[in-house]
This record gives sequence, C-alpha cells and structure tokens, in this order.
Amino acid sequence: MIAAQYMGDKSFSIVEGVNSSPKADEVKLAVGYVGICGTDMHIYHGVMDGRVNPPQTIGHEMSGTIVEVGADVEGFTVGERVVVRPLDWCGECPTCKAGHTHICQNLKFMGIDSPGAFQSNWTVKARTLHKLPAGVNLKQGALIEPLSVACHDIRRSRLQAGEKAVVLGGGPIGQLVAAVAKSVGADVLVSEPNESRRAFAEKLGVESVNPLETDLEKFVDEWTGTKGADVVFEVSGVKPAIDAMTQIAGRRGRIVMVAIHSQKPEIDLFQFFWKELELLGARVYEAEDFDWAIDLIASGKVDVEPFISSVNPLTDIGSAFASMDNNPQGMKALVECNAE
Amino acid sequence: MIAAQYMGDKSFSIVEGVNSSPKADEVKLAVGYVGICGTDMHIYHGVMDGRVNPPQTIGHEMSGTIVEVGADVEGFTVGERVVVRPLDWCGECPTCKAGHTHICQNLKFMGIDSPGAFQSNWTVKARTLHKLPAGVNLKQGALIEPLSVACHDIRRSRLQAGEKAVVLGGGPIGQLVAAVAKSVGADVLVSEPNESRRAFAEKLGVESVNPLETDLEKFVDEWTGTKGADVVFEVSGVKPAIDAMTQIAGRRGRIVMVAIHSQKPEIDLFQFFWKELELLGARVYEAEDFDWAIDLIASGKVDVEPFISSVNPLTDIGSAFASMDNNPQGMKALVECNAE
Ligand SMILES: [Zn+2]
Ligand SMILES: [Zn+2]
Ligand SMILES: [Zn+2]
Ligand SMILES: [Zn+2]
Repeated sequence: MIAAQYMGDKSFSIVEGVNSSPKADEVKLAVGYVGICGTDMHIYHGVMDGRVNPPQTIGHEMSGTIVEVGADVEGFTVGERVVVRPLDWCGECPTCKAGHTHICQNLKFMGIDSPGAFQSNWTVKARTLHKLPAGVNLKQGALIEPLSVACHDIRRSRLQAGEKAVVLGGGPIGQLVAAVAKSVGADVLVSEPNESRRAFAEKLGVESVNPLETDLEKFVDEWTGTKGADVVFEVSGVKPAIDAMTQIAGRRGRIVMVAIHSQKPEIDLFQFFWKELELLGARVYEAEDFDWAIDLIASGKVDVEPFISSVNPLTDIGSAFASMDNNPQGMKALVECNAE
Repeated sequence: MIAAQYMGDKSFSIVEGVNSSPKADEVKLAVGYVGICGTDMHIYHGVMDGRVNPPQTIGHEMSGTIVEVGADVEGFTVGERVVVRPLDWCGECPTCKAGHTHICQNLKFMGIDSPGAFQSNWTVKARTLHKLPAGVNLKQGALIEPLSVACHDIRRSRLQAGEKAVVLGGGPIGQLVAAVAKSVGADVLVSEPNESRRAFAEKLGVESVNPLETDLEKFVDEWTGTKGADVVFEVSGVKPAIDAMTQIAGRRGRIVMVAIHSQKPEIDLFQFFWKELELLGARVYEAEDFDWAIDLIASGKVDVEPFISSVNPLTDIGSAFASMDNNPQGMKALVECNAE
C-alpha cells in the first residue's frame, strides 16, 4: 500500500500508506485510475496550500474496486467496481434537510479537505459510492466525476432537444458539457480560441468558433436565426466571456455559470431585464448526476476515451502533473494506482 | 374630448383631442383613472424625450369604460369596464411565436412608443383588454398595471407559501411586490432606508428594516435561522442592494431583478457558484399577471386603496406630476379623466 503525498510547490513524495480497516459505515477500495483536474493543478501550484495543508494525499476523480466492507454497510460486496462521489455533507444543516446535500453549509470535499485517491487503497463512506456496470471499464470510470459536473450543469440549464447551446471555453469541462448537451439532442457550439481544442470539439461532432477572429454575437445571431442562444454555459472564466454571455443569450435564455469567478465582474444587468435572462449558479453534482454520467458512458451516448490524454503509474505522479502544465491540448491525464 | 400632451421639460398642455372611431380590431374607451409611474416621471423630467418625441400624450396605468367597439371585435360590449395591458407586440418574431409576447423582439410600449391614456378617450387594440369584475372600481383599476408588474415578479420567483422573501426597496413597486408575496403566504421583509416607507410596509403587515442602521446580512441570517432568504427582489436600483442580494440569499436562493440597472454593476459571481443562486430578469407582465392582479383586488387579498396618494383632474395633470416630485411617501398619484 503506497500513497502519493503532495508536499507543496509542485512536488509529490511516494510514502508507505497506513493499511487500516474500514469503519462500520465505510468501504475500502483498491483505487484503479485517478484523473487530474483543474483544482488538482491549482493545488499543485501551491495556490491552495492553506486549505490542503501539505503533506496531503489529494485526488478525487477516481474509479476502484471494493476490497473490504464495513460492518454496517449494506448493498456493496467485495470485488464490485465503483466510483466515489467525493462529497462529505453534514446531514444536519437546513440545506441538507432540504435535500441539497451537495451544497451543504458544512460541505467538505474529499481529496481537498480530507485525504484523496492518489494511493493504492482509499477508505470512504459507503454513501459516496456508485456502482460501475459491466460495460464501463476503470479508465472510463475515472472520467465519471468530471462528466457528472457536466451532467449537473446540463440539468441546471433545463436544456431540451432541439435547443441551441453555446459553450464558452473548450477545456475538459467545456468539452464534456458540449458532449452531454449533444447527447440530449441540442445543437451545440463551442467558442474557444485554441485551435487544437476547437478541433477536439469538431471531433465530438459539435460546431466550434474562434471568438478572437469571429464576431461571436453576430455568429450566434445568424446561427440561431436572430433568436439568440437558448442556453449559454460560461466555462472559460475570462472577462470577454462575461460580456459575451449576455449578448448571445436569446430572450428567456438561461446562462449557467460553470467557471469560478473569484473577482466580481461587471455584468450587463440591463440585458437580464430586457431579455428576461436567467443566471444559474452550478456547483459540483448530485447523486442523480453520477447515475446519469454512468449511464451516458455505459450506453455509448458519450465517449470519454478521447478525453484520456495520458496514463502514468502512481509512482510517476509527478510526470502526470507536469504533463498537464503548458498543455492546452491535453484533456485528462490519468494516474494508474492499480491496473484493471 | 380633451387630451393632455407632454410638451417636454416638466410641462403639459391640454388640447382638444381627435374624436376618431375605432378600427376593426380596436375599442374606444372613456378613460377613468390613470396612475403616474416612475417611467412617467422619467419622461416628465425630459430623460426620454428622444423616445417619446413630444408633444405626446403619455400614460399607461389606467382603467376605463368601453364606449365604442370595432367591427371585428368579439367578446366586448359598450359599457363594460376594463383595463389595458399596454403592450403592442408583433406576433411574428421567434419570441412571440414561442409565446413570450411581453418580451417581443419588436415590442412597443403604449403610452411611451405610441399615444397613451392621459385623455378623455383612448382607442386601443381589443387584444390588450382585461375586464373589471363588479367588485373592483375604476380607481382600484388604475392600480392593476403596477400590481401586475408585482405579480409577474412573484411568478418569476416561484415563491411558495412559507418561504422567506426580502424586498430591497420600499417604493410603490417594492411595496406591491411585498403585498403579493404576503398574499401567497410568504414571510416578507422590506429593506428600505426611508422611515415613512418602512411605516407603509408595516401597515401592509410585513416586516421592515433600515439597511443603513442595521446589518442586513446579519439580520436576515437571524430572521431565517442561518438558512438565508429563499427569494430576494432587487427593486431599489442602488449599488449597496447589488452587494446585499448575493449576501442575504440562501443556498438555491432566487434573486429577481426588478430594478433597471443601466450601468454594469459588479456582481459577486462566486456566491452564485457557492450557493447555486439564480438571477431572474423580469420585464413587464403577461396576460395571466393581469388576471391574477384583478383577482387579488377583487378577492380582497391585496388592498390597493392605501397606495392612492392623490387624485387630480386631467385639467390639473401638471399638479399631479409635481406632487410626485420630492415626495417619497407618495405611492401613487391618480389623474381623473372621467369620474366613475
Ligand atoms: Zn475535479
Ligand atoms: Zn449540511
Ligand atoms: Zn408604469
Ligand atoms: Zn414579436
């Protein structure tokens, strides 16, 4: 049993992990594959050291196999392949009681606020688990967490078949949002300056546009026959997208705020009045988003294989992280903790 | 037949109107009472001369009695008392075809973009009319248009009985929003610096707070038992309210943008992510809002009488407008065109 520990300042060390047994409500997993996401990259760059408190094992986009089951756990058996929905909610606050445990007032994020998945074995509460069906392998399984983010964004948007959706930003989450939007039957346009990311979108079967070369407002106006976009997903986190989102949304359009804007950008509220726009905040996912994401992969409606840019062994986790730096083409680097 | 014409720069002149007959799809009304709203005050101050193009008869919050019916009009007869929903939509654009005629891409507002109600007789398309039931008099009828604005805001918010709603700004629309919110069984708090407006809210039976003296965020936190407001109505149009709205809204809270912010204020988008907030733009009203507003008055669920601050004859329209200047206590000045 080994574990990768983030030590601060872009460095990891591989240590011998503690091989403890699961508590009554827990399950112990042999970790299969773990994806590296934007938040992991932030941690890697030292931006979140205050919250992560290194040395710490991080990682939360994972798949694995059950190796031990706690005394009170029902419905799970050794050998089953699962993914973890890495949220630790309190169950006591008004938000949890209203059923919105994913935005619990005391929410802890596993792999950030508590130890994560970059290790041979990970012990988690059974309530975080979702089973993988036979047709989904462990590599695909590692993509279920980010795909669930996209599923949550789509559910927040109430996107319908036949509607036109614009995704601002063609990084991994933007592309997954585009893929899920396409799977529900929407017409999808990805706005992205980077050429290889636009090519990625085109391979997914959705349209793409370079907003630095093309007047996006005019483009969307023509694309929608003057109606404007039914749904806009702001995934880029950049200021021009904040201006674009209110311009390209049509009347009664919904704008889903996927990117995290830590500053307070200036927003064209007049457009909210004039066109009766909606702005919808979206954070992580709920259990049904994981169920939907698993079904999308199992049914073949979304193919996550093209998202996997590289696979490195856990002992080489540093290379996996380094490969994601300065690589806008790379969608998702996986770390193999135990092979399938 | 006389008509008041806005001449520019806070002046009106009373002229002999043209006594024409209604076209096939029109109805001619003897105007009863016409309320003065914030938009009318803007016009009065010359801010909208480019759009209004004086000399022009303005006014759109009205009640009246049918005196002549066009050849093709069905369902209306002479002597019926009605109110006008002062929207002129094209019926052809994608938004109209989707059923959202109130935000038509070519929407004209009657009384601003075309002649209005400050005259003895007003001829309008029959499709704009709503009938007044026996229990609603013409003075109350003049309040139906602004009450419909409030009804539309409440419908946009999906406010439910038992939820907690905060109204930022206690002017006429804010107070009407509070009254409709109370009528659906919500707990309502009006945040308003002006003492007499707070007193008005208290008389409506809702709570009030002075945000200049009390820490609003703390107050709402206690008022909601840490849950935060279910719905926030931003009616004030001032910058501190833009900051407050994202602070006081609880998780999954809905913020309805009632005020028109022409600048682009800085908005705390992080809170939209963190709490999964919704921002909902709201503009004018739909037919069902007028129906609801009429029912609220007819059933006694909302009492609009306290909103009527003064009644002046049409020949004295200048005094009516002057009375609204420098009078934050005054909720609604009515102009009498034909007595009941
Ligand atoms: Zn992640
Ligand atoms: Zn909780
Ligand atoms: Zn008005
Ligand atoms: Zn139209």
